[in-house]
Amino acid sequence: MPAKTDHEARRRDVSAAVWRVLAAAGFGGLTLRAVAAEMGATTGLVTHYFPSKKALIVHALELAESHTRELVPATDGVHGLEALRQALAAVLPLSPEGTEINRVWVSSWDAALADPELHALEKARYKRWRSRLHPLVVEAQTDGSLPPGDPADLVAGLAAFTHGLVVQALFDPRAFSHKRLAALLDTHLDALRPTGSVQ
Amino acid sequence: MPAKTDHEARRRDVSAAVWRVLAAAGFGGLTLRAVAAEMGATTGLVTHYFPSKKALIVHALELAESHTRELVPATDGVHGLEALRQALAAVLPLSPEGTEINRVWVSSWDAALADPELHALEKARYKRWRSRLHPLVVEAQTDGSLPPGDPADLVAGLAAFTHGLVVQALFDPRAFSHKRLAALLDTHLDALRPTGSVQ
Repeated sequence: MPAKTDHEARRRDVSAAVWRVLAAAGFGGLTLRAVAAEMGATTGLVTHYFPSKKALIVHALELAESHTRELVPATDGVHGLEALRQALAAVLPLSPEGTEINRVWVSSWDAALADPELHALEKARYKRWRSRLHPLVVEAQTDGSLPPGDPADLVAGLAAFTHGLVVQALFDPRAFSHKRLAALLDTHLDALRPTGSVQ
Repeated sequence: MPAKTDHEARRRDVSAAVWRVLAAAGFGGLTLRAVAAEMGATTGLVTHYFPSKKALIVHALELAESHTRELVPATDGVHGLEALRQALAAVLPLSPEGTEINRVWVSSWDAALADPELHALEKARYKRWRSRLHPLVVEAQTDGSLPPGDPADLVAGLAAFTHGLVVQALFDPRAFSHKRLAALLDTHLDALRPTGSVQ
């Protein structure tokens, strides 16, 4: 089935061009025309795969999700606070890929705040992230390395701390080096540790 | 000088329309055409005051700054942790105006990440915010209500925590009610308090 293969190969080319445009110009710069120019193709070709700006945005968010999944560390054999630390560190821009993905996510908030469907997707994405962090927080509370209290509140606070660092680092990568970001996360988790617990 | 007054009154009308478009559609929706439609005027009129999309964005950011300044609380007679708590609470979306302004700021990050000039402005804005929080953190460290260590790290962490809550609240205002946001901030500051210090 050569036709099908061609179609899929071409779709992958368009998809790769979407990601390059996004990483360079954000969602504000993501247009059918920009993707076509990035490929040296006509807008007609791009429209064949993504009939509207909205379809392009939805595809771009799927790409961001799949790139993000690739960055999630395997945490087999790691538990409690250490698993939580690794899960949060995986979200920080500690590598060129991590920076690129974060830049795309933060950039997507403009479109997501303006469009009800994208808003619902981002809300659901946040909920899933918090759900994944929840059992790690409970484990860390149980072994005394995080303070007692509603785990959902701690989860929301840790997600907030992490994303807030992401935004500051994107705007000031020199002040927020990889080393400093990792140290800020460590110090923060240590500061939350209830006293009297064993380090 | 009626001509001048007319000019200024008209500029204020355009400016108000810019803010309404921004609050409803974000920076992605901020176009000369959208502002003109919001006013029931021609794009020619808008272009007379803001000759380009970039000029419109820069003006929108100035509006956001001035609206934000209006929300900053007077902290005369309040010191240390309580002044810090009030300064951070002022940034949270705890009122319709606060939500609107935060929505505009978060939306602006897409444009600011893509444009070097806007990027530099946002970086400077973050620096100014951290500089304002810095003496409040030092005061709270001195009276023992925040842990010792580099105050710049605590400032960055508290700014991160606050902005990260802002984003989660914008996408899920039901899960992050005004009451819960205020409580999350209080609980967080309490959790950072070194044990042994007087509450």
